[in-house]
Amino acid sequence: MAELVITSPSNPRLKNLVALRRRRAREQQGLTLLEGYDELALALDAGVVPRTLFSCPELMLDAAAQEDVVRRIADLGAETVRLSRAAFEKVAYREGPDGFLAVVPAIDQRPQDLTLPGSPLLLVAEGVEKPGNLGAMLRTADAAGADAVVAADPVTDWGNPNVVRGSKGTVFSVPVASASTADTLIWLAEQGIPLMAATPDTEVLHTDVDLTGPVAIAVGTEKYGLTDTVLDAAAQRVRIPMAGVVNSLNVATSAAILLYEAVRQRGRA
Amino acid sequence: MAELVITSPSNPRLKNLVALRRRRAREQQGLTLLEGYDELALALDAGVVPRTLFSCPELMLDAAAQEDVVRRIADLGAETVRLSRAAFEKVAYREGPDGFLAVVPAIDQRPQDLTLPGSPLLLVAEGVEKPGNLGAMLRTADAAGADAVVAADPVTDWGNPNVVRGSKGTVFSVPVASASTADTLIWLAEQGIPLMAATPDTEVLHTDVDLTGPVAIAVGTEKYGLTDTVLDAAAQRVRIPMAGVVNSLNVATSAAILLYEAVRQRGRA
Repeated sequence: MAELVITSPSNPRLKNLVALRRRRAREQQGLTLLEGYDELALALDAGVVPRTLFSCPELMLDAAAQEDVVRRIADLGAETVRLSRAAFEKVAYREGPDGFLAVVPAIDQRPQDLTLPGSPLLLVAEGVEKPGNLGAMLRTADAAGADAVVAADPVTDWGNPNVVRGSKGTVFSVPVASASTADTLIWLAEQGIPLMAATPDTEVLHTDVDLTGPVAIAVGTEKYGLTDTVLDAAAQRVRIPMAGVVNSLNVATSAAILLYEAVRQRGRA
Repeated sequence: MAELVITSPSNPRLKNLVALRRRRAREQQGLTLLEGYDELALALDAGVVPRTLFSCPELMLDAAAQEDVVRRIADLGAETVRLSRAAFEKVAYREGPDGFLAVVPAIDQRPQDLTLPGSPLLLVAEGVEKPGNLGAMLRTADAAGADAVVAADPVTDWGNPNVVRGSKGTVFSVPVASASTADTLIWLAEQGIPLMAATPDTEVLHTDVDLTGPVAIAVGTEKYGLTDTVLDAAAQRVRIPMAGVVNSLNVATSAAILLYEAVRQRGRA
């Protein structure tokens, strides 16, 4: 193989990998980072074509078996670059790097770009701040078979490395989009998809409403919940019953309880 | 007030606060750390009596209003110590400290010490490693009104500062216990509480079983799930339906989906 090999941590090719940890660089270049063998394999299965793969055989858990991903990526026409351990550890952003880091096209579509089936099940996350929560919601949306996740007025972009990591790569398999809250509401109305807003300020339980038709389940920030704009546009307001002293579930936990109530009603398995 | 005031970060009184971040020191002293105004207020409401409160008015978000907690703790007979900002920042373990750090008695009871109502709803977490996941499960158990959470063969102790933080203080309000898996199973059998084990290896969905009677819902590690010991002892094995590509929910998310199915069936609100 005539592969490029980089042994020096100060090689200029590595600078952009560190730059892509910043949102501005991701947006300017239309690229994001994807680290980890499992996450990369999942993204490849979902049809993602990396631009460049940086790999470090020395760090791979099972280099003999995992080289298949390097070949798959090379066969897709992507550049593959080998790094020394020192070079890889400079560009890895997670603890315990496993020798795989790819530069991939950014995931950023508008809701209008989503292709939805009949009776779609959507999750709308408004203003969620913590990348880990967005990632966790994607993992749950994947398991629940949700048709898409829309970030409304997002504080974090989908390409944030901590979203990608928290999602275990499902950010590349679950259709995602982002838009302002206003545009999201207009789009849902145009699609005829009713909004079900989670809020503590209602007597209607989430288990009391019909979730078998098209529905967008909306959750807001941990601190303030959904904005009045979303609450006013909702066809239903529902609350998750809370018996305890803290009376606030984690937002990703709330999303999971709501999505799985829809799964139960829809009889998916 | 004749309060002790510590201004030097190298004051020997502060050394033990750093030592208590280690499990061995917590177990030897029967003490643990509780940081944060909200968490502390919740623990006080739950009946916790701190040994010592270390506070830093300069770091408090609203010192005038928050001094009430300092008074409440002093009235309970606890020692209260004022720290300079530099001294507090040395002992704080979380980012963005808010000026409250208490030393409190360790929470560690055996399952036998729990007082249960009729038809108890329990969560058993076997071998869970990440303190953040244990903390998240407590927060959900609090909201779902679970009667207790038992850590079986725990890797993390309940007093781990990251469990306390992740639980938002609910580790002091939800009854918790820990024991070996073997002892936990013996205790459940003695109590006549059937075990419902979550595992992907069954066709029975969690929504297909009756959760209205006494039940202990068991979840295992993210990587390996429950041990055969628990699976063999279970009255029911159930799976959460998964439609996606990753096919593994976060363990705290799984616990939330299972607990809230029990809440739905029990008609709690």
